[in-house]
Amino acid sequence: MLRERVVGFLREHVLPREDVLDAGGPKADAVLRGVQEQARREGLWAVPLPVELGGQGLDLARYAAYAEAEGASDHGPAALGSAPLLDVLMLRRHGTPRVREEWLPRVVAGDLRTCYAMTEPGVPGTDPVATTTRADLRPDGSWRLTGRKWFTSGAAGAGLVTVLARTDGASPDRDGLSLFVVPTTAPGFRVVRELPVLGASGAGGQWEIAFEDVRVPGDGLVGERGAALTVAGERLQLGRTLRCLRWLGQAQRAFDLMAARAVTRTGSRGPLASHQLVQAHVFESLLALRTARPLVHEAVALLAAGADAHVEVGLAKVAAARTLQQVVDAAIQVHGAAGLGPDTALPALLRTGRAARILDGPDELHITSVARRVLRGYA
Amino acid sequence: MLRERVVGFLREHVLPREDVLDAGGPKADAVLRGVQEQARREGLWAVPLPVELGGQGLDLARYAAYAEAEGASDHGPAALGSAPLLDVLMLRRHGTPRVREEWLPRVVAGDLRTCYAMTEPGVPGTDPVATTTRADLRPDGSWRLTGRKWFTSGAAGAGLVTVLARTDGASPDRDGLSLFVVPTTAPGFRVVRELPVLGASGAGGQWEIAFEDVRVPGDGLVGERGAALTVAGERLQLGRTLRCLRWLGQAQRAFDLMAARAVTRTGSRGPLASHQLVQAHVFESLLALRTARPLVHEAVALLAAGADAHVEVGLAKVAAARTLQQVVDAAIQVHGAAGLGPDTALPALLRTGRAARILDGPDELHITSVARRVLRGYA
Amino acid sequence: MLRERVVGFLREHVLPREDVLDAGGPKADAVLRGVQEQARREGLWAVPLPVELGGQGLDLARYAAYAEAEGASDHGPAALGSAPLLDVLMLRRHGTPRVREEWLPRVVAGDLRTCYAMTEPGVPGTDPVATTTRADLRPDGSWRLTGRKWFTSGAAGAGLVTVLARTDGASPDRDGLSLFVVPTTAPGFRVVRELPVLGASGAGGQWEIAFEDVRVPGDGLVGERGAALTVAGERLQLGRTLRCLRWLGQAQRAFDLMAARAVTRTGSRGPLASHQLVQAHVFESLLALRTARPLVHEAVALLAAGADAHVEVGLAKVAAARTLQQVVDAAIQVHGAAGLGPDTALPALLRTGRAARILDGPDELHITSVARRVLRGYA
Amino acid sequence: MLRERVVGFLREHVLPREDVLDAGGPKADAVLRGVQEQARREGLWAVPLPVELGGQGLDLARYAAYAEAEGASDHGPAALGSAPLLDVLMLRRHGTPRVREEWLPRVVAGDLRTCYAMTEPGVPGTDPVATTTRADLRPDGSWRLTGRKWFTSGAAGAGLVTVLARTDGASPDRDGLSLFVVPTTAPGFRVVRELPVLGASGAGGQWEIAFEDVRVPGDGLVGERGAALTVAGERLQLGRTLRCLRWLGQAQRAFDLMAARAVTRTGSRGPLASHQLVQAHVFESLLALRTARPLVHEAVALLAAGADAHVEVGLAKVAAARTLQQVVDAAIQVHGAAGLGPDTALPALLRTGRAARILDGPDELHITSVARRVLRGYA
Repeated sequence: MLRERVVGFLREHVLPREDVLDAGGPKADAVLRGVQEQARREGLWAVPLPVELGGQGLDLARYAAYAEAEGASDHGPAALGSAPLLDVLMLRRHGTPRVREEWLPRVVAGDLRTCYAMTEPGVPGTDPVATTTRADLRPDGSWRLTGRKWFTSGAAGAGLVTVLARTDGASPDRDGLSLFVVPTTAPGFRVVRELPVLGASGAGGQWEIAFEDVRVPGDGLVGERGAALTVAGERLQLGRTLRCLRWLGQAQRAFDLMAARAVTRTGSRGPLASHQLVQAHVFESLLALRTARPLVHEAVALLAAGADAHVEVGLAKVAAARTLQQVVDAAIQVHGAAGLGPDTALPALLRTGRAARILDGPDELHITSVARRVLRGYA
Repeated sequence: MLRERVVGFLREHVLPREDVLDAGGPKADAVLRGVQEQARREGLWAVPLPVELGGQGLDLARYAAYAEAEGASDHGPAALGSAPLLDVLMLRRHGTPRVREEWLPRVVAGDLRTCYAMTEPGVPGTDPVATTTRADLRPDGSWRLTGRKWFTSGAAGAGLVTVLARTDGASPDRDGLSLFVVPTTAPGFRVVRELPVLGASGAGGQWEIAFEDVRVPGDGLVGERGAALTVAGERLQLGRTLRCLRWLGQAQRAFDLMAARAVTRTGSRGPLASHQLVQAHVFESLLALRTARPLVHEAVALLAAGADAHVEVGLAKVAAARTLQQVVDAAIQVHGAAGLGPDTALPALLRTGRAARILDGPDELHITSVARRVLRGYA
Repeated sequence: MLRERVVGFLREHVLPREDVLDAGGPKADAVLRGVQEQARREGLWAVPLPVELGGQGLDLARYAAYAEAEGASDHGPAALGSAPLLDVLMLRRHGTPRVREEWLPRVVAGDLRTCYAMTEPGVPGTDPVATTTRADLRPDGSWRLTGRKWFTSGAAGAGLVTVLARTDGASPDRDGLSLFVVPTTAPGFRVVRELPVLGASGAGGQWEIAFEDVRVPGDGLVGERGAALTVAGERLQLGRTLRCLRWLGQAQRAFDLMAARAVTRTGSRGPLASHQLVQAHVFESLLALRTARPLVHEAVALLAAGADAHVEVGLAKVAAARTLQQVVDAAIQVHGAAGLGPDTALPALLRTGRAARILDGPDELHITSVARRVLRGYA
Repeated sequence: MLRERVVGFLREHVLPREDVLDAGGPKADAVLRGVQEQARREGLWAVPLPVELGGQGLDLARYAAYAEAEGASDHGPAALGSAPLLDVLMLRRHGTPRVREEWLPRVVAGDLRTCYAMTEPGVPGTDPVATTTRADLRPDGSWRLTGRKWFTSGAAGAGLVTVLARTDGASPDRDGLSLFVVPTTAPGFRVVRELPVLGASGAGGQWEIAFEDVRVPGDGLVGERGAALTVAGERLQLGRTLRCLRWLGQAQRAFDLMAARAVTRTGSRGPLASHQLVQAHVFESLLALRTARPLVHEAVALLAAGADAHVEVGLAKVAAARTLQQVVDAAIQVHGAAGLGPDTALPALLRTGRAARILDGPDELHITSVARRVLRGYA
């Protein structure tokens, strides 16, 4: 039911506006605000967000199918107010009263955007202990934050940034890292440049940002001093799984485009749908979709039950990313030159699909990590 | 529970005797009878077979996990009395009283083996209408059966053979084909030769057989005259799905062998389990298993519910066959030369895995058939 | 020797300016003119172009290694004056005196750019007989040209466009198609829009263009009336092979970037170069390069000898396109997030690599065409 | 010319007798001797073997195309007398006078077969330093040889075995390994069992053998004491490359079988050759063949020139093994059930193809070794 409403909302309000939204800038912001207003009117706003902060409190297990649907567009989560879910859950649990009471209601309401700054240029994303951003405690109990982050999603329009910094010790010490939440209005915070992904901007954009002697009050700590990896770890598996759900939604969208093309396009050898090589594209894409989906939902179920989902999330992450890349690749091939051009969503889906195999941990990380864990069971 | 008992039974009674059973001949028969007797003693005999014929009547949905376990060895189904399930269901529904009352109880008891002869040398297995075996009605109401079949599993030791023959019309007429059940003691029936699969015999063997003016009484018809494809069609999807379950069991077995090897074998660069390329074999194999399994069980659930499962069975068939081939290939690679030699089950699993992509309909049949069906939904 | 000079020229003058050149517009034009001037000064201008038109007349067999090197950047051929090779060879052979004497020297000199307009929106690129652009003969011997083309490379800055139009008959009649060459200053010619490929512009750009009652004088015909497919066919195989050479150059470039990254980047588990999964990316990429290259050069040798190269060009086209896509994909993976961002050439190479499997005939066309031809030899 | 004669010889004398030869035993021996006699009569005997030992002395570069042709059958090299090439070259260079004068002429004449025993059960084949077979020097200057080897090709019918043993030090010391050549009539030598490869015997067979206190005279040393890895290393790259040539011959044979099947077999949807999915099998197989072949011949050319061929042999080995496995897999698929049965050479080719990815160094060895070497060039 809810899923169908979300599918319909995207079809009517989001997909037709993707070009404008992709372009970014003030016009995109205005369009997004209009779509968000519509979502509120239809009762589709902030569905999985906590009730006490203004959301509708849908639990994870039921949100899963919905997340697939809203993820069919990279703009879906922002349009429907579920984009800040991970930041909100983290800050609700680990933020100070100022954060929880002053800021989170505004975040859930859509008035304040958040972003999450972990990865740094020059530092492997899989190596958080190598973080070079520093936060030094000052005599007055405030922190002085200095460093640079990149591939921070949505940084340009954000009002709050959560940032990973070293407060104590040195690499590879895991206990000297801390998280801080900082208003982007703080002096010394600067958006350095946009990082187009594979040549073009996506929803919210990826950004390089700098912290140049930013003063953070003592209550800007998120969680305990030195507990950054514990706090970040809590959201890691859920974050990956939500992303997988969205990729499934996008892969389904690419599949639908391919199938529609195959049945409507006719060449001198008959309809594309009658060509065995097109049928093979359709079959392999369907197989990828139908095999990745249960794996992702198994990971969701384990996370919803509070169980260990390391193996399942790793498998699901690799499978969902590959599925998106593979289905989009097939859909483009079936479209021919039209699949390369600007008249379908396929180029944007291809960028997301290729990036998926790197962001949230590259394939190689999951392959080795899952295998080692499984093999331990045989030792 | 039941699954664990079956796993244990195979481990104790079947796997250690596979070499003897593979070799075939009188010694293999004697060993098989001993194992079957043990299964009866442990209450594991004929579990999914109908109660009124002597089975235990476990329904399909619950039999599925059990079928994976018993299928881990090609000899499992015969050892546990579930091998004739498809023939029994078909003959119970479409056989004449003589078949149902005289023969089926003996089949379920394990005293009479059955086989199912469809494919012919020189005729594409995917083209049943091209069948050249003929059954001609004689004035006395009996039939005269003439033709040749191949890749008939278990024909050499069988007491009953169900055979597809043309009774009327000519190819490609679909309504002139009929099924007959014939005792292999009938004059004119002959086992021509064994057909080793990829160079070696498997459980029951594959055989080429001949019908040379075999007289079949009028009540040898299975189903109505001309209804062969309807009757055969009823068992087709279930048959494919059962086979998929067994392949999953075999793939799991190959995976376990690979993992055990990886954690016990050490070379000059440390344990195999620590090599990333071995980890990749483990990960990709696990991913294949964990994605094929839900697909197969989805097909089971649809069939158990009497729903249309054409798409799901086609996807499951291709996925399960590929998974078996892929996991066995990886397991062999991790074993090195030992994986090629006679000391593990891997060579036999490889033969089954390679054959799986052809038997029960080659990949190409399912790819085109599923895609056309799915595309019709977009037309 | 020549190859080394070209490699050096690109490294010094073209690669550092790719960002500006990619962006297009007047600034890019100015930069390109500067680089071209430098090429002329270094004696590297128009090397494979005919001597009598102002080129250096290097023959195809020797041009091949050079073409790999200049193709490492999409801007290389334009920078070095070899970009119009195919148009020049075609117009020299089939153009009227006005074309040959007035225009071609200016084309070779770099003062007049050309483009080649075949594919139409809504018509499969593999189906030239379905062309809907029409050229109608007028009483005064001139033609009236009406229609729309897309994916015309470099149309926006071109001074001359060669265009495929139907002059007689109707689809699928092959003898009613003719080629015309038209100055883009002709009234009624219009650049409709740019077609970013996979979301971004490339060298020269891809464009949609319109012919709205364009008047073409009688001597605008290229080749005989009705002979378009013969004329176009002459350049087809050479065109594909040149493109393959350039893709090899780009794949080599991506490989070099990957290898350089692997030996300089170090994470908590040591240098990337020591990771087996990175070694596998390197090995598979090298294998692709080293196997595609001989195939492409075999096609060149056959074309240079005037032999039938249908099978070899088809194999080479598919292999080279896949190689580029595969090597770039691996290089991006080894770069991690940095491979997605704007600081390397990899995103542009990825777009070229993906498009390569469609442009110049999609994989599916070559697969079926080569296989049918080879199988005829076994019939 | 020579190549055509070899192709014809195999077609006429070897291929029709493969079933008998595969079965092994006295009948196979007799048939093989007859075929060898025929080869001598036709002047095709021992073509690449040294002239002074009774061969024809064809050099490696010209032998390469011939080796492809004779390798199309696993029995080809034995039938034409080129099978002992590697052993003869090694023993000619490193053997004592007794070996060179008494034995080698008989080996080249085909009267004495050789085998080469390196790998041991329980020791990774890629780790020769872990060899556990020992040779202890006795006071009289003779050696006492004790140990077990497996996957020794052709051991059962051999008259001479060259064996790797540790004479000094302990693993991982590389300088304490020595090679010995031993007549198989020596007391204490024993053939333990045959090791069917993937379930069936191949040409010559693979064997497990034991040395139980075998006495080897002092002049049984091959090369210097402690120089085993140097001597073995000399033949390693050539051995791998010859094997690649034979695999190419077998892959070509599988391709021809596939193509012949595609053009002669017709189903209800027309000839197999008209199905796009069959065309795809043909195309991909041809592409594999046409890309692996230049790579193998490049390795041959480097070896013939005495140049370093480490990278090229590694690439060629992986490519040729994969090609054989892939082409045979496709050929089987196009044959359907007939490809699994005993009526074609495909099952034997499949076994060779699968084993090829392990024997002579598993893929993983070459992937990591080649990549590390190439990356050193970028450091």
